[in-house]
Amino acid sequence: MPHQKPDIPPLKDLTIDNITDNVHAINSGCEDPRTRFLFERLVTHLHDFARETRLSTAEWETAIKFLTDCGKICSDTRQELILLSDVLGLSLLVDSIDHPKPPASTEGTVLGPFHAHLSESVESGSAISHDPEGEPLLVVCTVKDSQGNPVADVDIDVWETDSKGFYDVQYAERKGFDGRAVLRSDKLGSFHFKAIVPVPYPIPDDGPVGKLLKILKRHQYRPSHMHFMFRKPGYDPLITALYLRGDPYETSDAVFGVKESLIVDLSTAAEISGVCETYNVPATMKVLKYDFVLVSDAEVIALRNQKALDAASSLGLKLKLDNGLLVRDD
Amino acid sequence: MPHQKPDIPPLKDLTIDNITDNVHAINSGCEDPRTRFLFERLVTHLHDFARETRLSTAEWETAIKFLTDCGKICSDTRQELILLSDVLGLSLLVDSIDHPKPPASTEGTVLGPFHAHLSESVESGSAISHDPEGEPLLVVCTVKDSQGNPVADVDIDVWETDSKGFYDVQYAERKGFDGRAVLRSDKLGSFHFKAIVPVPYPIPDDGPVGKLLKILKRHQYRPSHMHFMFRKPGYDPLITALYLRGDPYETSDAVFGVKESLIVDLSTAAEISGVCETYNVPATMKVLKYDFVLVSDAEVIALRNQKALDAASSLGLKLKLDNGLLVRDD
Repeated sequence: MPHQKPDIPPLKDLTIDNITDNVHAINSGCEDPRTRFLFERLVTHLHDFARETRLSTAEWETAIKFLTDCGKICSDTRQELILLSDVLGLSLLVDSIDHPKPPASTEGTVLGPFHAHLSESVESGSAISHDPEGEPLLVVCTVKDSQGNPVADVDIDVWETDSKGFYDVQYAERKGFDGRAVLRSDKLGSFHFKAIVPVPYPIPDDGPVGKLLKILKRHQYRPSHMHFMFRKPGYDPLITALYLRGDPYETSDAVFGVKESLIVDLSTAAEISGVCETYNVPATMKVLKYDFVLVSDAEVIALRNQKALDAASSLGLKLKLDNGLLVRDD
Repeated sequence: MPHQKPDIPPLKDLTIDNITDNVHAINSGCEDPRTRFLFERLVTHLHDFARETRLSTAEWETAIKFLTDCGKICSDTRQELILLSDVLGLSLLVDSIDHPKPPASTEGTVLGPFHAHLSESVESGSAISHDPEGEPLLVVCTVKDSQGNPVADVDIDVWETDSKGFYDVQYAERKGFDGRAVLRSDKLGSFHFKAIVPVPYPIPDDGPVGKLLKILKRHQYRPSHMHFMFRKPGYDPLITALYLRGDPYETSDAVFGVKESLIVDLSTAAEISGVCETYNVPATMKVLKYDFVLVSDAEVIALRNQKALDAASSLGLKLKLDNGLLVRDD
């Protein structure tokens, strides 16, 4: 087959000092300005990392094998690369960048690798956890906007582990969903359901990321928490979780998710006026009450754009926004 | 099971601005100083990349899926993550850092993902390629040290594609090795073998890395070349390749491997005195002649250490060498 000499800047005799500019040169043919900017920064940081550490071939081989093993262990119900991103603090960082919250909003936190798409929709009031070993918990919540108005018809994904600290999807033999469901807020922005009191649990330690935490002498526990994800057109999706105050891992979450505003104290039904009667639960039943605040898409987009431009300016980079994403302003 | 509060600095309310220092704090318990330093720089660059680009959740998801797909497509004979490292220039950079060459030495270049461990040892003079469509090539080489003395008993791994541009390991149905072998230099430092004239070939374009090159509008070709790896105790391993002058991709190698000192002109046997008789080949047979120079382990270690300390100093980082690897000098 005939080969023609490509029309690009000549690349030859590349060294520690000139390789980066030359990779940029060959990547600069990319037509999408955002992809071009992402790869410029990615290659710069990747190369600077190798240059600063004087990365050895043996270490590079270890990294190649580690990432390969992470990919290999992934399945429909396990995502080791998200777990890696979580334990390196990247997930929390990206969520903070992408979903900046105005002061009125409930804070967001890490999604984690155990959210399941297409979990079952249930009526408000349903029991979503059927683990007989779990301590029963009534969860009573509202969803409001930043002006205090109830937000009806919000889809609310909820997920938590069983009493042993495992999500349903971690059981190879599972028959269906448990400890997770999708609820919907009513006209008053309310929803409630029966679950179990969350327990601390280890993130999976039988894969490459678990081994990494051992090498870093880090424990693999997450403090007791319950995940929530709120979605309604016109509102910024809220991915968050509620944490139990006093958990031994409250200030050492393996994936950096805990925020003070998301820490809750549990009550008993008897301690809150009307709860026993309204929800028909025994006086000793544990209750988690929380009022979530959703903010509009428009508010978050404006805030994200402003923060992106501020960051670009403070970095001294000549950038502009293109569809809400930073690109070079050439 | 009883849980005890771990004795580490408190981590809570982590934000875009404080997450990096907090990840460093929790990783600082790692006992190995080199691993500690690597993760400090890795986390810094990973977070800076996300902060500078204001990485979106959708882009992060694309990256997670990309790396997962790279891991999934890897097999005993395919290494997509090495290919990724190659096309981003990281492989060339790491090789340059790990194997700095004194001026007398043959230059190194990228290993590539198609080196096979345990390929077959053959006698000098053997034919290593049996592709009847290939143009026959006689390869006549010497291995000397930096003082010009022959180096005997060097193990020399050689590998090249067939005439269609595919390595033996890329054929699912292959019956054994072809286009690769391990030779050994004789008392005069000489070795020779019969192969075929290398052809340009595309790196695999049916996986995630091939798709990435398309997005970056880069061609996927490597210029015609033959790989060599030299190993003998006491000498720095030399991983290199020889490239044919005038190849259409000579200055646009998809993996940045070409160096002027590694570009060769082929002759015919008739053009070099005594070749036809010595090697019993026809006058029209193509011949590749090259004299390789190996340098001692000690020379390369001294040079690598000096360059690492120079780099640390120019970066203004307070570092020292520990077993030849940079660590923080606290």
